[in-house]
Amino acid sequence: MASNFFGDIFRITTWGESHGKAIGVVIDGCPAGLPLSEEEIQQELFWRRPKRNQYVSSRNESDKVEILSGLFEGLTTGAPISIIIFNQDANSHTYESTKNLLRPGHASFTYLEKYGIFDYRGAGRASARETACRVAAGAVAKKILRYHNIDLIAYLKQIEHIRANANISEISLLRQCVQKSPVLCPDIAKSEKMMERIEEITQEGDSVGGIVELVIGPLPSGIGDPVYESLEANLAKAMMSIPAAQGFELGSGFQAVIMKGSQHNDSFATNPDQKIVTRTNFSGGTLGGISTGMPLIVRVAFKPASSIKKPQKTLDMDKNPVEFTMPDTMRCDPCVAIRAVSVVEAMGALVIVDGLLKNKTVKL
Amino acid sequence: MASNFFGDIFRITTWGESHGKAIGVVIDGCPAGLPLSEEEIQQELFWRRPKRNQYVSSRNESDKVEILSGLFEGLTTGAPISIIIFNQDANSHTYESTKNLLRPGHASFTYLEKYGIFDYRGAGRASARETACRVAAGAVAKKILRYHNIDLIAYLKQIEHIRANANISEISLLRQCVQKSPVLCPDIAKSEKMMERIEEITQEGDSVGGIVELVIGPLPSGIGDPVYESLEANLAKAMMSIPAAQGFELGSGFQAVIMKGSQHNDSFATNPDQKIVTRTNFSGGTLGGISTGMPLIVRVAFKPASSIKKPQKTLDMDKNPVEFTMPDTMRCDPCVAIRAVSVVEAMGALVIVDGLLKNKTVKL
Amino acid sequence: MASNFFGDIFRITTWGESHGKAIGVVIDGCPAGLPLSEEEIQQELFWRRPKRNQYVSSRNESDKVEILSGLFEGLTTGAPISIIIFNQDANSHTYESTKNLLRPGHASFTYLEKYGIFDYRGAGRASARETACRVAAGAVAKKILRYHNIDLIAYLKQIEHIRANANISEISLLRQCVQKSPVLCPDIAKSEKMMERIEEITQEGDSVGGIVELVIGPLPSGIGDPVYESLEANLAKAMMSIPAAQGFELGSGFQAVIMKGSQHNDSFATNPDQKIVTRTNFSGGTLGGISTGMPLIVRVAFKPASSIKKPQKTLDMDKNPVEFTMPDTMRCDPCVAIRAVSVVEAMGALVIVDGLLKNKTVKL
Amino acid sequence: MASNFFGDIFRITTWGESHGKAIGVVIDGCPAGLPLSEEEIQQELFWRRPKRNQYVSSRNESDKVEILSGLFEGLTTGAPISIIIFNQDANSHTYESTKNLLRPGHASFTYLEKYGIFDYRGAGRASARETACRVAAGAVAKKILRYHNIDLIAYLKQIEHIRANANISEISLLRQCVQKSPVLCPDIAKSEKMMERIEEITQEGDSVGGIVELVIGPLPSGIGDPVYESLEANLAKAMMSIPAAQGFELGSGFQAVIMKGSQHNDSFATNPDQKIVTRTNFSGGTLGGISTGMPLIVRVAFKPASSIKKPQKTLDMDKNPVEFTMPDTMRCDPCVAIRAVSVVEAMGALVIVDGLLKNKTVKL
Repeated sequence: MASNFFGDIFRITTWGESHGKAIGVVIDGCPAGLPLSEEEIQQELFWRRPKRNQYVSSRNESDKVEILSGLFEGLTTGAPISIIIFNQDANSHTYESTKNLLRPGHASFTYLEKYGIFDYRGAGRASARETACRVAAGAVAKKILRYHNIDLIAYLKQIEHIRANANISEISLLRQCVQKSPVLCPDIAKSEKMMERIEEITQEGDSVGGIVELVIGPLPSGIGDPVYESLEANLAKAMMSIPAAQGFELGSGFQAVIMKGSQHNDSFATNPDQKIVTRTNFSGGTLGGISTGMPLIVRVAFKPASSIKKPQKTLDMDKNPVEFTMPDTMRCDPCVAIRAVSVVEAMGALVIVDGLLKNKTVKL
Repeated sequence: MASNFFGDIFRITTWGESHGKAIGVVIDGCPAGLPLSEEEIQQELFWRRPKRNQYVSSRNESDKVEILSGLFEGLTTGAPISIIIFNQDANSHTYESTKNLLRPGHASFTYLEKYGIFDYRGAGRASARETACRVAAGAVAKKILRYHNIDLIAYLKQIEHIRANANISEISLLRQCVQKSPVLCPDIAKSEKMMERIEEITQEGDSVGGIVELVIGPLPSGIGDPVYESLEANLAKAMMSIPAAQGFELGSGFQAVIMKGSQHNDSFATNPDQKIVTRTNFSGGTLGGISTGMPLIVRVAFKPASSIKKPQKTLDMDKNPVEFTMPDTMRCDPCVAIRAVSVVEAMGALVIVDGLLKNKTVKL
Repeated sequence: MASNFFGDIFRITTWGESHGKAIGVVIDGCPAGLPLSEEEIQQELFWRRPKRNQYVSSRNESDKVEILSGLFEGLTTGAPISIIIFNQDANSHTYESTKNLLRPGHASFTYLEKYGIFDYRGAGRASARETACRVAAGAVAKKILRYHNIDLIAYLKQIEHIRANANISEISLLRQCVQKSPVLCPDIAKSEKMMERIEEITQEGDSVGGIVELVIGPLPSGIGDPVYESLEANLAKAMMSIPAAQGFELGSGFQAVIMKGSQHNDSFATNPDQKIVTRTNFSGGTLGGISTGMPLIVRVAFKPASSIKKPQKTLDMDKNPVEFTMPDTMRCDPCVAIRAVSVVEAMGALVIVDGLLKNKTVKL
Repeated sequence: MASNFFGDIFRITTWGESHGKAIGVVIDGCPAGLPLSEEEIQQELFWRRPKRNQYVSSRNESDKVEILSGLFEGLTTGAPISIIIFNQDANSHTYESTKNLLRPGHASFTYLEKYGIFDYRGAGRASARETACRVAAGAVAKKILRYHNIDLIAYLKQIEHIRANANISEISLLRQCVQKSPVLCPDIAKSEKMMERIEEITQEGDSVGGIVELVIGPLPSGIGDPVYESLEANLAKAMMSIPAAQGFELGSGFQAVIMKGSQHNDSFATNPDQKIVTRTNFSGGTLGGISTGMPLIVRVAFKPASSIKKPQKTLDMDKNPVEFTMPDTMRCDPCVAIRAVSVVEAMGALVIVDGLLKNKTVKL
């Protein structure tokens, strides 16, 4: 069943495999009249480009974006926006040696069970390369958010036990700190520690998990729908659809378990502008599935990357036990959470834009 | 925009307010030929019935289920199944005293911001009473799962720092333990401690958070779709749409953050029947969004209930600061996670049935 | 697969069988703040009530409408509106004698082929009784249209070779003429002829086809979407989903086949208010799938009813040839097109409301 | 709102403008394991290629198809299939002279009203060029139908009063006749007359309407859903979404209006193989929205093309009356119905494949 799309009013459909000719995304439902250029999208992709530094894997993805439709004289027309990125540097031979292995933590087994066929080259459709399309579409969504004065930032919150402190009250300041860190962590001291730890892990031929936090604000109140289309439900779906995601939290998240109602209840008050706010924000910015107007705060836990250099035991496709070592030419990410930062930000932008547009239809 | 439905092929649409005439659910897309009776659904609702014991709130909801359509001679016909529960014991006068308050943690504020109107009686559409419809629909979904020999169980995993141990390898045995516990916790010792703690919290006029764990198995491999409709994405949406949910985990969940790839990678092996399994199950039963055939394990964190007896400070609708105390006649749940157990189970069943039916369309 | 719903933003889901306990509709996505009462919906159902005169069949359907949810203090709240009509006068014994027959023109055969089970009582889900739910939902849609100053009217245009002339430039005047005619035809002379013809057909124990025309206006320009969600595509789907519909036309319809481009092209001009209009309206009110602002004109052809009193030859379920005569207690409609008038009007209203709401999302 | 997609399980999303860089389609939900090549799709596009003869317009569209994703070793993988056709021979200068005109019968006016912006070059997104993507996707759908032994053929049934007779009982024979005719009409004598008439019309600088008939069979019984997703409702939507479509008929169509029930009722009988059939097929192959197993027969009326060489009166965008003549370099189709033949066939294939896949989910 059709499943490669996300969103209802502002909908993206992505396509493409890691080692096919190209990957791409079609944005259907983008409002007309938005100024847009390839450069802006290219800029967003810079964030995820693996070669930026040693903390992410080394595929030389130049990822040149082309917009093939939906623009006229620099503005969106309401027609679908087709964005394409031709694949380069896709050396499929690398994957010959592992093509008959059920690599632990990889999707080859489940794709084969489901479809009876699997494009093993770079994990095919299961590759995280698909997320480049999310980032490209997210760039368009962010332009719409900016038009509505909504800002958002994702950053690396934690790896192992190293957890960053961050002042999230000013997103633009927070962004400056995030951009300075090679691991996208705004807490300078912790950023240093994370880098050290990642270097160690890389030496060990291993990988490590992490948490990405996303902050959105100022978000207007009223975004999100009750019950099944609640803002947090759609954010959770968006985030858990990112490869390697294992957990999702809103506001207090799992900490809510050890809190009492009298602590957790965010009491209402007025700010100096007489706007209604909450004194605390344990809820994370929603009540009843609808935004309160407070910053929206979510966290996503990512597992350690499954591709590691260390020798591993598993089965081949004939069910024979094997021990294997990944070829040196295969790329590894010591911490996928770093690469996921831009994807979390993009998915957050997509959910909010869809919610903003839906919200235009709730009153007469 | 239409938002009160869940699922694509097996779709539920729910309606109704806490203090309206009735609540109900329409199940559209249920396969034909399934034996079904009102009694079976009634039985499932027993699980959530608040008056079962002192650990859940005391609304005398007899919740008598009626099936109005979709059955012929005891079998489903493929036509929509309309299930209705008339509201009884809905004393709206109780809510008169708080109708002008922005109760902390409640949705009155956000509904008013979104719609400009709010049915304050028992929280109207925002009431957890809507979840009775999910449980009723879940009962139908579970019958389909049983037909496919798929079993599932949810239970109370944790409140505050009290965390249960449970043997999840045999779901039928686990169910027996869960059903014996007034708080739906299969670990007898921890169940006792939980009860004690809930009694204390009730005395304090406060509430406490909790975690519900859901185990599904044996689940066939191949369920779930790549990318945006991954099994975990849909489970996350399902769970985060439950009132008071603050977090979602799959398998290792947030623990993945402190693990290395070499630990987390579930290596493949064969079981005595020569079926491919994984030695560990940190992934939680999916790879690439598709079920592996191992048990599916998810956890949902619930915040402490917002309705507490303790005095609270907030604003009224004219932005005046007020301190208020809930009337004694208003029902409170000291731990909503207990009530949520049956809802988590129902939502899990709905996601799996939809996935099973979708999966029939992926091969020629 | 779920299929008992219509519309995207303003979505209806209907349920119920002809001889079940009740039928109903859930409206999901209705904007908040609309005044609504059971009486208004009841009034719309009056139009379709079969006992109004001898030209439609005689089921004594009192069709008492109840609104079970979605209203608070007389206004819609944005929550789903559940409308129920309990079935009365449903004498299932009438259908015992024909339950094993494959009645020509009926859905028993195809339902059995599809589902393996069929509720034969009054045709179950395949009964035109389902259309009462469309009319009820259409009543809500019409209120929204009135709020936007959009009017619409359907009427009986033709039976056999008797074709009405009607001045469609003033919908309110047209409505007065339609309401005066027992067969809902605004052309007095043709209405008389139609009645005579229907009486003859009834005497013969036979039935006759007809055409219903729908006029909507003044419709704002810009409603409808390019390509697959064009206004005419959605109108066609809406109309062809009505039982017994065999054809659909927009504007010139099949007459376009014998026209030249130089005739058919509606040239643009300005009206006295300097508004852009077209001199003619062969297109029927849309260009490129989007409304022009001219009246929207569609026609729907209905086959003669399959239930007739004349003896008919067919098979029973064991493939034996049989000749059968319908029992006298079974209701027949000599011309279903008359009953279809209110349904065409309702479906038209549903399409336009959905289009209006979608249109709010196309600009920044 | 997202609107450039069609189908639920087997879903196409199209994008691209007439004079943009490229057009394309993403097929999401195609079952895995289907052999597929670019050549097969290229072959289908040959049918619509305008330069095939003088009866269709003269754009030199080489329309070279590329498949960018979704295939592995010649088989579909279940991943989205992205098909692209780069635009060539797109001389935008041609359109400069008419860019400020509200050309009669064109969508420039309605797009501007809706979006405030319009890509006037070759009608942009409103161009019939989009239909090449439907034909490409239809080629994939047809391969699936062939796998299920379902055949289909569309042909030119009528222009003006010239109506073809055709023996539709053997689709493969019918196809041979259709392919021999430059205007895709299987009736040799009428084909000749049509060609003569089109030459006359071309000389006049005018255009003419036409009817396309589609025949599908042998279609299994049970395809299509009751009520809103009836087979005819989805076919009607599919066909009326084709540019220039003004009418849709199923089986007897508008002729049903002058028939009696005793004539129109298709009585059931057994064929020599003891299969249940109907003696006649006025219903057109469905009952209650579900296929009967008899051939599916639909007809679509197309208006005469709006682009004609004759001088026309209209307004410019400043509301000034103007008389204009299309530049000689602009392409005209004397009868768009001929070009529409392949599109009707493609849309029919898409509806049936979606219905086939949906049908897999209706039984346990």
